[in-house]
Amino acid sequence: MPHRYLTLTARADALSLMKQKFPPPNHIETVLLEHSVGRVTAKPLYACHSVPPGNVAAMDGYAVQSHETVGAGDRRPKTLAQAHRVNTGEVVPGMYDAVIMIEDVWQEDGRIIIRKAAAPGQFIRRAGEDIRAGDLIVPRGHQIRPFDIGALGAYGISNVPVRAVHVGLIPTGSDLVPIGQAPLPGETVESNTCMAGAYLAGMGATSRRYGSVPDDTGRICEAITAAVRENDMVIISAGTSAGTRDFTAAAIATLGEVLVHGIAARPGKPVVIGSVDNKPVLGLPGNPVATQTMLRELVAPLLERWGLSPYQRYERTVRLARTVTSDLGFEEFVPVSVGRVGDRYSAAPHPRGGGVQMAAVRANGYIRIPASGEGFAAGCEIPVSLTVPPGYVDRTLLCIGVRDPAITELADFLAEEGYLLHCCATDTIGALLALQENSCYAAPVMVPKCEPLVRELAGRYCPDANPLRVRIAAREIGIASADGLELSDLASARVAAPLRGTAPRVLLDALLPEHGIDPYSLSIAAEVRSHDSAAAAVSGGVADAGVCSAGAAAAAHLRFVPLGSESYELWFRQEVRDDSGIREILRILGSPGFSSRLCDRWDYQTDRMGEMLPGFRENLSGDAAGAMERSIS
Amino acid sequence: MPHRYLTLTARADALSLMKQKFPPPNHIETVLLEHSVGRVTAKPLYACHSVPPGNVAAMDGYAVQSHETVGAGDRRPKTLAQAHRVNTGEVVPGMYDAVIMIEDVWQEDGRIIIRKAAAPGQFIRRAGEDIRAGDLIVPRGHQIRPFDIGALGAYGISNVPVRAVHVGLIPTGSDLVPIGQAPLPGETVESNTCMAGAYLAGMGATSRRYGSVPDDTGRICEAITAAVRENDMVIISAGTSAGTRDFTAAAIATLGEVLVHGIAARPGKPVVIGSVDNKPVLGLPGNPVATQTMLRELVAPLLERWGLSPYQRYERTVRLARTVTSDLGFEEFVPVSVGRVGDRYSAAPHPRGGGVQMAAVRANGYIRIPASGEGFAAGCEIPVSLTVPPGYVDRTLLCIGVRDPAITELADFLAEEGYLLHCCATDTIGALLALQENSCYAAPVMVPKCEPLVRELAGRYCPDANPLRVRIAAREIGIASADGLELSDLASARVAAPLRGTAPRVLLDALLPEHGIDPYSLSIAAEVRSHDSAAAAVSGGVADAGVCSAGAAAAAHLRFVPLGSESYELWFRQEVRDDSGIREILRILGSPGFSSRLCDRWDYQTDRMGEMLPGFRENLSGDAAGAMERSIS
Repeated sequence: MPHRYLTLTARADALSLMKQKFPPPNHIETVLLEHSVGRVTAKPLYACHSVPPGNVAAMDGYAVQSHETVGAGDRRPKTLAQAHRVNTGEVVPGMYDAVIMIEDVWQEDGRIIIRKAAAPGQFIRRAGEDIRAGDLIVPRGHQIRPFDIGALGAYGISNVPVRAVHVGLIPTGSDLVPIGQAPLPGETVESNTCMAGAYLAGMGATSRRYGSVPDDTGRICEAITAAVRENDMVIISAGTSAGTRDFTAAAIATLGEVLVHGIAARPGKPVVIGSVDNKPVLGLPGNPVATQTMLRELVAPLLERWGLSPYQRYERTVRLARTVTSDLGFEEFVPVSVGRVGDRYSAAPHPRGGGVQMAAVRANGYIRIPASGEGFAAGCEIPVSLTVPPGYVDRTLLCIGVRDPAITELADFLAEEGYLLHCCATDTIGALLALQENSCYAAPVMVPKCEPLVRELAGRYCPDANPLRVRIAAREIGIASADGLELSDLASARVAAPLRGTAPRVLLDALLPEHGIDPYSLSIAAEVRSHDSAAAAVSGGVADAGVCSAGAAAAAHLRFVPLGSESYELWFRQEVRDDSGIREILRILGSPGFSSRLCDRWDYQTDRMGEMLPGFRENLSGDAAGAMERSIS
Repeated sequence: MPHRYLTLTARADALSLMKQKFPPPNHIETVLLEHSVGRVTAKPLYACHSVPPGNVAAMDGYAVQSHETVGAGDRRPKTLAQAHRVNTGEVVPGMYDAVIMIEDVWQEDGRIIIRKAAAPGQFIRRAGEDIRAGDLIVPRGHQIRPFDIGALGAYGISNVPVRAVHVGLIPTGSDLVPIGQAPLPGETVESNTCMAGAYLAGMGATSRRYGSVPDDTGRICEAITAAVRENDMVIISAGTSAGTRDFTAAAIATLGEVLVHGIAARPGKPVVIGSVDNKPVLGLPGNPVATQTMLRELVAPLLERWGLSPYQRYERTVRLARTVTSDLGFEEFVPVSVGRVGDRYSAAPHPRGGGVQMAAVRANGYIRIPASGEGFAAGCEIPVSLTVPPGYVDRTLLCIGVRDPAITELADFLAEEGYLLHCCATDTIGALLALQENSCYAAPVMVPKCEPLVRELAGRYCPDANPLRVRIAAREIGIASADGLELSDLASARVAAPLRGTAPRVLLDALLPEHGIDPYSLSIAAEVRSHDSAAAAVSGGVADAGVCSAGAAAAAHLRFVPLGSESYELWFRQEVRDDSGIREILRILGSPGFSSRLCDRWDYQTDRMGEMLPGFRENLSGDAAGAMERSIS
């Protein structure tokens, strides 16, 4: 018999069930005023005393009796018999009923002279003008803002009763190591509960992380029992699936009731919702993006129902740069990066695997595909929920293309200038198509450093874009082998070759015929995804020769025969030619700081970085065009 | 010679000067990962190790050799010689190159049977799939989000280098008492620096509050000297004006240089910007709203220039409900409340005094009037910066009218249901005009409990609105005196009378003729703004009789002769008749919890609360209309 999942529940139904089963705990805790920002008042707060407590001066000047000032004028200066120097905020003695600004008072030989009458009450702040003792300052349910702190303190509030929800966080898994310890293969750093604690704190909940519990139902039961006693809600991290080491559901069933096991949403499908002692006990999948999604889509709405402050969701309507598909019947959440492209916002998806946590780090938003749909086609206008403040989107430079380390380094330098470069990964052809569709700010491409080959690529995949090209960096490509094999030796060698369509493979296939070798007759021992993999295939004996970078060959202690270079370039559409972002990118690429960063950390050739490369349409006229035409044919 | 301000500087110029004079301190501090949310990375962060560290299973199931699975099919089940049970995240031993999901495996008598072939690499997460050792996680300048915590921890980051700015906060003033101590007249609770600390923390700055310093130049100098040594920036609270006890500018001049004293902005005009040891030393006015404005408009932009994260400003375009004027040459910031009224957003101003801190608490946004303008006319479409998340505005019920305690209590009960009631204070006539202009959700009015008088008010000020009326509560009004004076006695008494146009005055003026007294012949000893003031005028001997509430008379131990009641009502336009907010308001007004809250805390009559009162146009037909017409004439 196959081991199958339990019946899946719709997320909305699971949420309704939770809201119905688990009423607000209505816990109140008192925090010091200075620690109350972001917390939610549990009770209405009333002023303890009036502010100001008595009549005080609203200006620096003199307290006067208004009837004594009657008749004063520019041509009829009047000397006052009674006047009292007061500064802003000082008490106006009871005998005075007005204040004259210091600017309107002349002092001569100790006499106080005015040239303007004062109206009764003028420049006096009456007792209780700001607030009277007993008046409401803020209602219950108010999320305290930094500037509220001043008022609350001024009105006598030094301790604030706030809504409290205590959440117990239990990490499970025999494979867990603590943050700060390097994991061995098969080990995982336990950072999910740390993240959950940080997330819940943002809603005003307090959480307690318990120690990691190994994969053992008895031990998990003990941990749940303790956590349920001490908290309003318990979250168990991992062990929620149907694997042989997934004990979370069984442990909850032992102690209480499993209400839901498995919801029709991704990532996060194998969630467990249970009840122990009438408190919610949730098992969240160990995949970090699944954890995030379920915290946001399942835990947060319950806490909001319990009276805590929701995270705000800022939406933007965007044009989807690439088609995103989804299984019918599954609600799906997909991380995306949003940036301004021309006069609209464009969004490109990141990979969806629950384990690819970097996707969420790189993203600045996410889209939701309802269970009733199969996804969205490229070009659709759809809503995106942002995970950054909305203003950030306007300074985001959305790139779609090859994500090589140099572009993330460029992003670091751009960040210093206030630009946020986001790169959604695809291959060079995908990048060129995105440029053709005008769905990205720039397309990072990895092309052979060979103009005819580049021209052919551009002509085929982005014929309308007539791109501006800027070189980020280049990398030397060649043949790595134990014995120093050359191109002509490859006819009789087992070759570890890069994937078709990648720059080194295009280069290889273009050069082989010069030595009379048909690229299709090559003996491919392995098709590799990276330079390091090609070198590793040679070191491991799988192949005799690998096509890779000089750096990868050197790292694997192999001999290296150069073939050419791959050129990492940013391609832009002509429309953005005068954009400030491009100017900044060119400045950075030409700066010594950037090239030394690339030299220190990566195996790039850093000469002629930031070089403006020739476009295509320009070249089609005159002799240069003719020469190019010939070189391609 | 009058004591005058120094030349005023435009805020933008002051800010430019500061940015130019004070380059970023570039301080870095290291914080624990779990405390890093909201902080800004000072350096790019790179992964310490690859994730996953080795090839692992992406599904629960069996690790297999893909070549062994070739040929398996629904009708050709295949028993595997080699297979290894793996759970999601577990290491796939080197000899296997694919994983088959547990759902697709049949186990019979210990044999592993499959009905589908596995592709090479299937359901295997390759080493480094999420991130490779040395890859960039986040660039410098990245504000850490809660969900980033999980990734940073997973990639080996346990301590985070973040940008640090240390701000010293020095409260000055001999009138200061600490938070939690009740101020006497002339004393002020020192909460400005607590507020400043909370505000600056939100940008990622750390601050240190020093003890309060009395008004003494020498002592202030000592405090500044110590604070400049220990911080990157020093803020002195209060003492910045031109009063006799304002020593801040002098102290800065003694130790360094005063760059600016006085800027052309309100509130916050008397700000001092100085430099001591090449560090910015700012004197902010003691008025709390001035402090807030200068923190937001002067300090925050400098800290942003220094690389800290700005507070996000969310804007909404709104229609201004009331005209807001401003002096030409002064940039002015005005707190407003914004709410949805019909199909657009409406904003009404709160009072602007720098000392009215409640205005900022009550507001959910502010408008900026540029120095080049004299304000905005009612009906203008203008941008508002919100001080709450934008979603809150959609559930804000904007009221313009009389702010009596009952409506703030109503706001507290509504908050429990997710509605945010904001009340911008004006008098009853202002409220009726706002209703006539359809610039508020509801108009709280205080009217005599006398239909003909109410009808006349409505007919004069909101003839087109044909309002729906709901009673919040009523309050008994009468004559307070030592001797039990009655209405007929007022002809020969000195009277403390409420302001013209207020409900008790309208009632008084309507009733006096019945006793042959001409309201204009009354001997008015004082025109008072509140019930308590009327009673106090009698107690203090200023008047023989005061027109006030029964509660105020009782509190002052005076005899009380009732005249009638004032009715506190919410008036709505017919368009909102079916709105969920009105339903909720009616439910609350009719609830025992609300009436007992009013009874316990305030002097309302709470019978017939939430009563739907007759409208006007309906009454114009039939006998009731005739009766009303007669009773008015």
